[in-house]
Amino acid sequence: MDTDGYLNRAKHSTMDAERNCMKKSERSGAFDHIFATTVKEQIGKAGYGDWRTISAPDAVSLGYGFPYPESLPEDDLIEATETVLTDEDEQVLQYGGGSYTEQLETFLADRAHSRGIDCGTSNVLVTNGGTRAIDTICRAFLEPGDSMFVEGPTFMGAISVFRNHGVELTSIGVDADGLDIDALAETLRLREQQGRDSPKLLYTIPTFQNPTGVSLSMDRRKRLLELAEEYDFVIIEDDAYGDLRYTEHDLPPLKALDDTGRVVHIGTFSKTIAPGVRTGWIIATEEILAVLRKLSAGGTNTFTRSLVAHYCTSGKLAANIDAIRRAYGERKDRMQQSLETHMPPTAEWTEPTGGFFVWVTLPAQIDTEEMLVDAAENGVTYLPGSMFFPEDTGNNSLRLSFSYVSPDEIDRGIAALGQTVREWT
Amino acid sequence: MDTDGYLNRAKHSTMDAERNCMKKSERSGAFDHIFATTVKEQIGKAGYGDWRTISAPDAVSLGYGFPYPESLPEDDLIEATETVLTDEDEQVLQYGGGSYTEQLETFLADRAHSRGIDCGTSNVLVTNGGTRAIDTICRAFLEPGDSMFVEGPTFMGAISVFRNHGVELTSIGVDADGLDIDALAETLRLREQQGRDSPKLLYTIPTFQNPTGVSLSMDRRKRLLELAEEYDFVIIEDDAYGDLRYTEHDLPPLKALDDTGRVVHIGTFSKTIAPGVRTGWIIATEEILAVLRKLSAGGTNTFTRSLVAHYCTSGKLAANIDAIRRAYGERKDRMQQSLETHMPPTAEWTEPTGGFFVWVTLPAQIDTEEMLVDAAENGVTYLPGSMFFPEDTGNNSLRLSFSYVSPDEIDRGIAALGQTVREWT
Repeated sequence: MDTDGYLNRAKHSTMDAERNCMKKSERSGAFDHIFATTVKEQIGKAGYGDWRTISAPDAVSLGYGFPYPESLPEDDLIEATETVLTDEDEQVLQYGGGSYTEQLETFLADRAHSRGIDCGTSNVLVTNGGTRAIDTICRAFLEPGDSMFVEGPTFMGAISVFRNHGVELTSIGVDADGLDIDALAETLRLREQQGRDSPKLLYTIPTFQNPTGVSLSMDRRKRLLELAEEYDFVIIEDDAYGDLRYTEHDLPPLKALDDTGRVVHIGTFSKTIAPGVRTGWIIATEEILAVLRKLSAGGTNTFTRSLVAHYCTSGKLAANIDAIRRAYGERKDRMQQSLETHMPPTAEWTEPTGGFFVWVTLPAQIDTEEMLVDAAENGVTYLPGSMFFPEDTGNNSLRLSFSYVSPDEIDRGIAALGQTVREWT
Repeated sequence: MDTDGYLNRAKHSTMDAERNCMKKSERSGAFDHIFATTVKEQIGKAGYGDWRTISAPDAVSLGYGFPYPESLPEDDLIEATETVLTDEDEQVLQYGGGSYTEQLETFLADRAHSRGIDCGTSNVLVTNGGTRAIDTICRAFLEPGDSMFVEGPTFMGAISVFRNHGVELTSIGVDADGLDIDALAETLRLREQQGRDSPKLLYTIPTFQNPTGVSLSMDRRKRLLELAEEYDFVIIEDDAYGDLRYTEHDLPPLKALDDTGRVVHIGTFSKTIAPGVRTGWIIATEEILAVLRKLSAGGTNTFTRSLVAHYCTSGKLAANIDAIRRAYGERKDRMQQSLETHMPPTAEWTEPTGGFFVWVTLPAQIDTEEMLVDAAENGVTYLPGSMFFPEDTGNNSLRLSFSYVSPDEIDRGIAALGQTVREWT
């Protein structure tokens, strides 16, 4: 199995890209001198999707947050295509779309309302996926040199989106109750004392966080909103995993507790329908949405959006969420049991009650990026923890996803991981 | 018919929006002080898609560049959905997509190659539509205060995209042979003499331009490329209408004449398949595409992209282009004949050989924005010419589209327009 070369290439992709870039800039076709400053700074650095090079043919993939194959509704999408294109004739395929296109906003507003969010259709903007939503919100608020806060660790895709805006990123720690609010308060207080600006934005995944799986406690949710008001920043609430809870205990989204309009809420169908439909949404005040609409160049894919609307309004979304909650809950339990069985006592891991991920912390001397080559040889891949921090840290941690492979494969993968960690301890 | 109120609202939408904004900023929910500077400058101003409010229920719509309803391939998309989702199982719905997703780049590279563009799949980036492509290219190159050149008149949607980047827009005139290259050369020379920067970007629709329908002559194409090299700017070539020619005479895309990599070429399936599939592409050097990929937050809709790939590779795109060329050609001829019949001798119009549009110039004292209310009452709508300039000009011109309605409706619409212009002359 030639995983060594493959994974080494992945590991060193940043350096390679930098070298390539230096060589290529001497040739025709490079216009680096015309690029915007923020773009120049990112040339040759790791970017969105680079993590997809981490794979090994015979290893169990616990790296990617892919939905498991059987959860993807091929037949329902074929049926939705037939229904929508037969019912609506051409409107669905025109600029602006037709009645199905419009129904999606109504469905999302009703659904948000049932989760305690005070909103109507004028507060909902459908987007080409959740990551595009993050980027559009950044466009509205950020300019180069601005400051923003994120969780450390946080979604690696978001970090690369923020970097493209040329902002100064600061991460605030996460523990079993989510974002460390005391640390946040202290950082804000110190910055004020030093005469530095408050962050413009704070990006958080408060429920079943990527990559840790933890949720922000109710008390901390309230304190976060108070701090946003006190220090005058806007919160991006990424609720990608909010529907995927495996216990009865439910926490309200931050947006449901928000009476100032400071929370800009993001949702996505990537986990509850399929990543390939690239359909997400933003819930915010009409004033903020007016700006975001202006920045949504060309608008959404009305065709997919109409299929998704039909899928949702015909009750299939609710049924699918029930089904995948059971399936993911089983996978989550299996991973927890397997970690108990196979990991050495020096390893620690989170105990999520929802989402896709478990975060593992190993003894400080282990570099999980280096360990990945051996892990792949032993039969498992994961994502190294350092990918999830804007700073150069997290080297002894890693993210496991229980979403993609079967429960038995999870067992095999965790056994291989346990063996690898023991070899490295 | 209550078009008066409707059209008046459309006409005064900018002012209304400004007033609303002032009122609303005093309420909870507005965070204008946190918005980025370029965004603040655009609040309350006209934005992408505002023109969609221009309609009147009983009038013939010659305003929108919509494909005619019968051209939209509902049945073929149903068949494509069945084939792709049955053949490929789940890959098409996952992050990254499957083999159909990949096929689209190969198809586009081969097709570009057959039009004389020297490119491979590494030079093709699929995007969520053409306008998104324009915006992503702007992200790569522009920062607030930069200068860019456009045609005057040009695609109104592009103007609003450029404005969002806080750039200084200068329009260069267009005549029957396209962009006025002498005027461009003179403007560049004068700016250099005055010690001002060259533009970073020039945006052009060289073939069957929106809104005039004219094409840039071969000689001017070559001179444009020479000027780009001399003054060191990048050309965005928007080739949205390149496939829609109604004569045998074919001009090569600018990208086919480009041996420096300065031309970034944009294509779209909005006109040849359907606007609702929101699928476009960019052809550029690998170095430029590496940057654009980084800025494509979340990537494309792999589901739609796979259907489009199947549609293209199964020969349906070529067959559809043949069919719509005939249908649009007939509509174009009908509009030209009808203009000859109904317009007063003081009116002038372009004589396109492709695309969707005819540009009409009326006597200088006629304001086509004001005239629109009467035109709608007489039974026709169009888009006022002032929408297509970044400067406050073009008030005596208007854009007609022959793409959406039937040949007989075109006759009716142009008769109503002729009557209105006579009333106003």
